Amino acid sequence: MKAVRFSTFGQPLKVVEVVEEPDAPLQPGEARMEVLATPINPSDLLTLTGQYGQLPKLPAVPGNEGVGRVVEVKDSTAVRVGDLVFLPLGSGTWRTHLTAPAEALVQLPPGTDVKQASMMFINPPTAELLLKQYVTLQPGEWVLQNAANSAVGRYVISLAKLAGYKTVNVVRREELAPELTALGADAVVVDSDNLPERVREVTGGAKVRLAFDAVGGDGTQRLGDSLAPGGVVVNYGVMSGKGPKLSAAASIFKDITLRGFWLVLWMKRTPREEQRALFARLAGLIANGTLRTPVEGTFPLEGIQDALARAMEGGRAGKVLLTPNGKV
Amino acid sequence: MKAVRFSTFGQPLKVVEVVEEPDAPLQPGEARMEVLATPINPSDLLTLTGQYGQLPKLPAVPGNEGVGRVVEVKDSTAVRVGDLVFLPLGSGTWRTHLTAPAEALVQLPPGTDVKQASMMFINPPTAELLLKQYVTLQPGEWVLQNAANSAVGRYVISLAKLAGYKTVNVVRREELAPELTALGADAVVVDSDNLPERVREVTGGAKVRLAFDAVGGDGTQRLGDSLAPGGVVVNYGVMSGKGPKLSAAASIFKDITLRGFWLVLWMKRTPREEQRALFARLAGLIANGTLRTPVEGTFPLEGIQDALARAMEGGRAGKVLLTPNGKV
Repeated sequence: MKAVRFSTFGQPLKVVEVVEEPDAPLQPGEARMEVLATPINPSDLLTLTGQYGQLPKLPAVPGNEGVGRVVEVKDSTAVRVGDLVFLPLGSGTWRTHLTAPAEALVQLPPGTDVKQASMMFINPPTAELLLKQYVTLQPGEWVLQNAANSAVGRYVISLAKLAGYKTVNVVRREELAPELTALGADAVVVDSDNLPERVREVTGGAKVRLAFDAVGGDGTQRLGDSLAPGGVVVNYGVMSGKGPKLSAAASIFKDITLRGFWLVLWMKRTPREEQRALFARLAGLIANGTLRTPVEGTFPLEGIQDALARAMEGGRAGKVLLTPNGKV
Repeated sequence: MKAVRFSTFGQPLKVVEVVEEPDAPLQPGEARMEVLATPINPSDLLTLTGQYGQLPKLPAVPGNEGVGRVVEVKDSTAVRVGDLVFLPLGSGTWRTHLTAPAEALVQLPPGTDVKQASMMFINPPTAELLLKQYVTLQPGEWVLQNAANSAVGRYVISLAKLAGYKTVNVVRREELAPELTALGADAVVVDSDNLPERVREVTGGAKVRLAFDAVGGDGTQRLGDSLAPGGVVVNYGVMSGKGPKLSAAASIFKDITLRGFWLVLWMKRTPREEQRALFARLAGLIANGTLRTPVEGTFPLEGIQDALARAMEGGRAGKVLLTPNGKV
């Protein structure tokens, strides 16, 4: 089997290589999967550069989620050859084959799009938890977010719609408006220093109490300045490369709170049953097509350089996926 | 009577003037006080420049707290001529005489230092509420603060000591250490990019969960980077002129929360009885000398330019007070 590997932290294109690894025989109770699809997430890029909040011992295989097909099982009836399963979270998924205890594997709901399912465990729960963990919104209330065209941004639009919340979506490119509107966005505005005024206009002066920030720096500040007094900005990414900040007026005089969200911490703190309930709900929404995010392109393992370069570009149309066996 | 007045927002030294005002006759139930001492607080400077969270209609008389002596009462037995009273909060106190309903006046506890009492309503409650409103600390826990030599910073040191908390005090000048230590500071460190390491050293690696920030910008970030995961930075001032910010590592990976504190909002939201209880407790601590802050100098009303210039300087030894009648 083959795997992407890195032995030092640094510029992603420079540190990854594709290596051959021996196919170890299965232990009793284990299953072997061929990896069908596994995404390149922002957290993978930060892991490669060494900037992520938890880092693996090196050398390591990157990749945290995906979908596989069972090709071999030893002494277990938990799964059968041919079953489509979610790859275990955080298992180093950028490889052709992966081995795991059969009992721990979860099958895809019947009829699920494999590519969409391969992106289920990181961005959809992030969107759902951003919407539910910080402010108890009432149906009809507005939520504000930047980087609205990202995978998380799009899931936020769909999940907010489902919950009856309205969304103001901040983007850098005007031409994204029709696409996000079709997805269910109630308003799309281009980021600028006028953001507070634009938000007031498109919401009819509604008191917006919750904002999601994946940009950092001035991007965070503009969200904070657009919220009603007592509002909360939740920072979950730093696409600008800068930490989040607020204006003194927002922080002190408007009592705006800045929080941070990291899915890894939520997983550490949340009982397994609660996690499973959330994932089951999201799996259902992906299976019935309610939640989906565009795919920019699929790449074989040997195309990892091109795939990473594409994942690091702005102006993408969607997520970059690795399809190590060329079967989806 | 005379008063400091400003008719436009701008550079404090340029916008203030001292004007004569007529002594209006008292209405029934009113008392007239001569103003003995009234401080120049940072919020007064921000009001003059027009940067404060609430601004008066112009022209206006600045000044929000102080101590006066009753010199005339009409048809009331609530106070008597000669009584020492707190000036009503937010009443435009930078003047020689002030009129107010006698029933609303609160007398100083016997034996209270007039200068110390004149600074009671803004900085001491700020310090107490910073310590009590955000994180429920256990005795023996550490609190971290910058601008530790400010009036609020010193009250924090004393009130933390009283509650059994330990303080790490961040200053810009090494030579402040002995004075703050004498006041009860458990550790004094000079601000630098090494702050997280210095805090770890002086606390013996304790998990510090709460920090107070009066600096903004990188100053806030250094506090955030010094806290244990899940900690809270409360921003209540912006001496650097910059809004507060956090590193992405602190915000996302360490779950650090940034809050803002503004006494005015607390007063709007808190029942009168609760406010009175806090002020009574603080008045007692000022009367018995537990809480005190140094005075840099006292100035007559006509010296308002010098007083403001001094209040705007760094490296002061204490608070600047106006003593409009030259009697303390």
